[in-house]
Amino acid sequence: MKQIYYKDVKAEEAEGCVKAKMRWLLTDKDGAENFAMRLVEIEPGGHTPWHQHDWEHENFILEGEGTLKTREGETKFKPGDVLLVEPMEKHQYRNPGEKMLKLLCLIPYKKEVKE
Amino acid sequence: MKQIYYKDVKAEEAEGCVKAKMRWLLTDKDGAENFAMRLVEIEPGGHTPWHQHDWEHENFILEGEGTLKTREGETKFKPGDVLLVEPMEKHQYRNPGEKMLKLLCLIPYKKEVKE
Repeated sequence: MKQIYYKDVKAEEAEGCVKAKMRWLLTDKDGAENFAMRLVEIEPGGHTPWHQHDWEHENFILEGEGTLKTREGETKFKPGDVLLVEPMEKHQYRNPGEKMLKLLCLIPYKKEVKE
Repeated sequence: MKQIYYKDVKAEEAEGCVKAKMRWLLTDKDGAENFAMRLVEIEPGGHTPWHQHDWEHENFILEGEGTLKTREGETKFKPGDVLLVEPMEKHQYRNPGEKMLKLLCLIPYKKEVKE
């Protein structure tokens, strides 16, 4: 068993993020071999990169309000909302509000077949 | 992309739970193929089963206070705490407090090798 308070995990710069940082709460280094739990903090006016990749995001919104931009448009979200961004779906999380936005963002680890 | 508010997902009875229910927020039915996001709500005096299984739990505590019992003892947790319960680690979440305990509990889906 491992226990940690999220603020005791360093908030790190992340590629392509503007006024946004990421705390890697649970990773394979902790023994979490299947998926990683990260907490993303986006300041007012900040955003994550407008990008895509071949793995999904599972999100839970903790604090603040924001928007998720995809090719279909931009949708608002609030605390308690749950989001699934599908593999290869282009996306960007934005904070157009006036307070800090905090959300969980979980991603899978890829498994390779051993021969 | 999928978006849903957690309270719009039904809180269901779960085997071995006492005064505790589970909302399956994201599952393979939503296209979340690698891991599922559930939200567990435990009333004061309630608990999940004292059990073990061969997959891990990744938890984020949302509201309330509780304890995690393992063979090593019982440890308190609070909102913002992150827990990792390892595969085959016997465990039970308990709410000895006076308000509702809410926590996220994520589990992996097993992948089978196709021949």
